[in-house]
Amino acid sequence: MSGDHGLLPSWRPGPTRERLLSFLDASGRVPADQRVAVFDNDGTLWCERPIYAQLAFFMDALRSAAADDPRLADRPEYAALLDGDHQAVAALGLGRVALALAELFAGVEPAEFADRCRRFVSGAHHPTLGVPFARTVYQPMLELLAELRARGFATFVVTGGGTEFVRAVSLDLYGVPPEGVVGTLIGYELARRDGRPVLVRTAELQTEANEGPAKIEHIQAFLGRRPILAVGNSAGDWAMLEYASSLPGPSLGVLVDHDDPDREFAYEGAASTFETERTGREMADRHGWLVVSMQRDWAQIFPSG
Amino acid sequence: MSGDHGLLPSWRPGPTRERLLSFLDASGRVPADQRVAVFDNDGTLWCERPIYAQLAFFMDALRSAAADDPRLADRPEYAALLDGDHQAVAALGLGRVALALAELFAGVEPAEFADRCRRFVSGAHHPTLGVPFARTVYQPMLELLAELRARGFATFVVTGGGTEFVRAVSLDLYGVPPEGVVGTLIGYELARRDGRPVLVRTAELQTEANEGPAKIEHIQAFLGRRPILAVGNSAGDWAMLEYASSLPGPSLGVLVDHDDPDREFAYEGAASTFETERTGREMADRHGWLVVSMQRDWAQIFPSG
Repeated sequence: MSGDHGLLPSWRPGPTRERLLSFLDASGRVPADQRVAVFDNDGTLWCERPIYAQLAFFMDALRSAAADDPRLADRPEYAALLDGDHQAVAALGLGRVALALAELFAGVEPAEFADRCRRFVSGAHHPTLGVPFARTVYQPMLELLAELRARGFATFVVTGGGTEFVRAVSLDLYGVPPEGVVGTLIGYELARRDGRPVLVRTAELQTEANEGPAKIEHIQAFLGRRPILAVGNSAGDWAMLEYASSLPGPSLGVLVDHDDPDREFAYEGAASTFETERTGREMADRHGWLVVSMQRDWAQIFPSG
Repeated sequence: MSGDHGLLPSWRPGPTRERLLSFLDASGRVPADQRVAVFDNDGTLWCERPIYAQLAFFMDALRSAAADDPRLADRPEYAALLDGDHQAVAALGLGRVALALAELFAGVEPAEFADRCRRFVSGAHHPTLGVPFARTVYQPMLELLAELRARGFATFVVTGGGTEFVRAVSLDLYGVPPEGVVGTLIGYELARRDGRPVLVRTAELQTEANEGPAKIEHIQAFLGRRPILAVGNSAGDWAMLEYASSLPGPSLGVLVDHDDPDREFAYEGAASTFETERTGREMADRHGWLVVSMQRDWAQIFPSG
């Protein structure tokens, strides 16, 4: 392949980069309105260990709220979180704990919630990497997103996390506007404030958790498109990868393998709400997905400077 | 106002055009990510009389299906439609009739449904205007959409009609991609065909009808944005117009008045699922919306040639 030296500079030369570039070239044959790429967020576009940024955000809000009102610590979900009692959190169930955290923002308008998310992501430091969460995005993925858009792809984020949390930062982090984010969506209520109609957050979900097969249904419901490229890292992404990569014509599933304990983390991607007995590598072998080794394939993981 | 002679050429000079241009100029002060405009579809972006294009599409599908299987005419909803019995349709309720029509496409994949919609809209002729439905879009609105995008606005279609019907044609007709369309959404089911995961349509809705206050909630759920410009024509749009136009800073609600029986139609815009006792003009007076007279303000209604 010639003339590709400037492309995807953080992707090391080798079979992984070659296959990505081959897909990009082949996608030129696909009608423009079918050039659609979907990316999982946590562990695919940015770091998810040792804690999801969204959970760190809610924990920060919980600590602030508990400082103002110590009675919050009486509630089992909040007590487990404030004590860092992972067993208690697991026993209560992540879904129940997440909804208890959502209650902290019930009655808040979406714009105010988004402002708080943005301030946290740009200001709060990742616990081990020592940079703001906004700097824990993966440089090779930023390059891939830019290259896809340069080739006429529409690029979307399809996350198991909260839709509104990711929407608050997706344009700044990834160049994806709010309407390009599909996730687990909180409910709203219409209210009047100062005589004006406003929406406020509730503490109930309006979609099921956006993991596994739900990702396929939500891609159609919220985007109305079928992807020919899907990128993920956990069992929650497999359904979406199979959906994208089983199309006739150029299509590709990409699985990020977290195998770089020195520069990032080493772990098998799991879905919080989606059980499986297979590993990602087994699924990739079965379906012909491209496995990206962070250690071997990425010359650089995080943005410079 | 100087230097605006090339802008919005199908809008006649006068106070309506002046106010639109003033809003456009003022919107330059709004941060780019808050330049958001939403448009109703039927009666706002294209003609909705004497029949919604979507209903004409479903009627066409029903007649084809009934020709293949005459027993379909035994079903009350289909019989009422095939007989053109408006009273019977009204007695059954438009919601029930619409769901019966949706059954005609249960089990169909979204891409095939979209193909059929596109073929109908570009091929079938409007019953009185004598051109394909695709040519019944309003030229002044195409110019407004283009001018908004030139000024950095994101433009969306927020329709009471079926999301997937409008998504099928929105890019061609309005330059709005599928993810920019919010409507009344059919449900899907995940299935396997030839071993591959596919989605197929069901005959049940997954959202409530996208009219009235539901438009506000769906704008947030599906787009994650708050509009500063909303354009509509019927009672089903008033909530969205108030939502957009009550923001501090530059914002505008626009109501299209169908007052041109010679070139289009003359009627008071109603919502199929949303009752009201006020007229659009009363609401516009109360909230300061801009009323667009098709007869007085539009030099040209449909695209040329």
